[in-house]
Amino acid sequence: MTTILTTIAEAREALVDPRTNGTIALVPTMGALHEGHLSLVRLANEHADSVVVSIFVNPTQFGPGEDFDRYPRTFDEDVALLEGAGVDAVFAPAVDEMYPKGLDQTLVTGGPASRILEGAHRPGHFDGALTIVHKLVSIIEPDLAVFGEKDAQQLFLVRAMVDDLNLRTAIVGAPINREDDGLARSSRNRYLSAADRELALHLSAALRAADGAADADAARQIGRECLDGDGIVLDYFELVDPSTFLPVEGAHTGTALAVLAARVGTTRLIDNQLLMLGVSTAVN
Amino acid sequence: MTTILTTIAEAREALVDPRTNGTIALVPTMGALHEGHLSLVRLANEHADSVVVSIFVNPTQFGPGEDFDRYPRTFDEDVALLEGAGVDAVFAPAVDEMYPKGLDQTLVTGGPASRILEGAHRPGHFDGALTIVHKLVSIIEPDLAVFGEKDAQQLFLVRAMVDDLNLRTAIVGAPINREDDGLARSSRNRYLSAADRELALHLSAALRAADGAADADAARQIGRECLDGDGIVLDYFELVDPSTFLPVEGAHTGTALAVLAARVGTTRLIDNQLLMLGVSTAVN
Repeated sequence: MTTILTTIAEAREALVDPRTNGTIALVPTMGALHEGHLSLVRLANEHADSVVVSIFVNPTQFGPGEDFDRYPRTFDEDVALLEGAGVDAVFAPAVDEMYPKGLDQTLVTGGPASRILEGAHRPGHFDGALTIVHKLVSIIEPDLAVFGEKDAQQLFLVRAMVDDLNLRTAIVGAPINREDDGLARSSRNRYLSAADRELALHLSAALRAADGAADADAARQIGRECLDGDGIVLDYFELVDPSTFLPVEGAHTGTALAVLAARVGTTRLIDNQLLMLGVSTAVN
Repeated sequence: MTTILTTIAEAREALVDPRTNGTIALVPTMGALHEGHLSLVRLANEHADSVVVSIFVNPTQFGPGEDFDRYPRTFDEDVALLEGAGVDAVFAPAVDEMYPKGLDQTLVTGGPASRILEGAHRPGHFDGALTIVHKLVSIIEPDLAVFGEKDAQQLFLVRAMVDDLNLRTAIVGAPINREDDGLARSSRNRYLSAADRELALHLSAALRAADGAADADAARQIGRECLDGDGIVLDYFELVDPSTFLPVEGAHTGTALAVLAARVGTTRLIDNQLLMLGVSTAVN
């Protein structure tokens, strides 16, 4: 039986016993759940005695003109899925419960890696995301929190926040969950028309095409060319060092994380993949 | 016996027992301790079973050209004073222990009240102050933390941070501790020459003169005139609503917090006092 908690006081009270008797994992979500979220829940269940999933469409991580209002809200279906997945509690507060004084309040702001890529294209996005993650961690006080690797920059910045502010929650990353044809699962895939859904396959294809390139410059060129087509507007295709999330030099070889964002029709999607560069896989 | 702790791991380990067996109060300081700090320690001792005082001159709350390098460091005298005051532990980490990746990292940024008055005159100061307070609270995990009311805007913003980020530490404010002649005690008073020390008395005198004025505009005028003299450069004399830290209207009567910052010679000092405005104290 999954308990629904809607206030901070209720959540703290409900978690006293689970905390005394074991470990707690938090899976923060914005709802509109799909198989990708359920894979995070399974990972959380493996690592902790109790699993709490938060469902909160956080206004402070959406910019003006972004899709806050039309973001899919499917609460009843979400709860049914979480019941089936053996989740102990859902924390689903109202906006006023999380931001009682309004949205312009104390914020958590990331370091240099928060100001590039997604941070450059969505100003304020990471301030909002880090702030709500911090609030959820303060309220639930989980032993660990699980985040998807699809939002690679967010995951990097959440780990940095935990380190930098000396928080006590361990951060666990979960592999990207993909459809059979390679499309990374995302709540925003619901926005795609059938034609856009076809076009969206270019994103994961570009990442696969760039893998094994001679160096970072070659990988960037391959990736960008794959995404230079009708119906797709590329925001960025970049290669970063996974340990700093800063772009690697052009001649870089070895591992690098390829990250991209592109608009397919009116839908903005992101994806990423760890690449191996400049290492011949030919058999002599 | 006061224990000296210099690493985060050491501090966490040393506080396991005190936390299990009672409550912990934290008094964050930058050292150069004086009677004002000792009054915070006494208040901490009244409220908690164990008292931890942190001594850390935090580089991120000093701007370029401010007095980080020359800020007084009197560690041995500080520890002797804290021993005498019955403090259980001193947490005195090195800069590298608190900022292992450098100073440009995840920050805590205040809301609108952080961008005016001290925030306008010292850009970045409150980001640095809130970030280090958060780090100290995460490391020590105190039940309560004590801050002086002399840094009124900082105290307001720390309370807001705790509310906004749902932290679990209670914040306790301690009254301003003054010399017999009215000068608010400050580590920076050590910078004052004998002549500057005389001039500095105008700060508390201006606050007293403004108390009882007809309204906020009248109080501002009185305060500013008191501080318009040779050897003093006024940064601001403002009246704010203690519940928002935003300036009150000119016709405001009732209570208001008068806050000021002024440079006396090369020393920048702040002070504040709660005023009662427009209320006749005359006996009919």
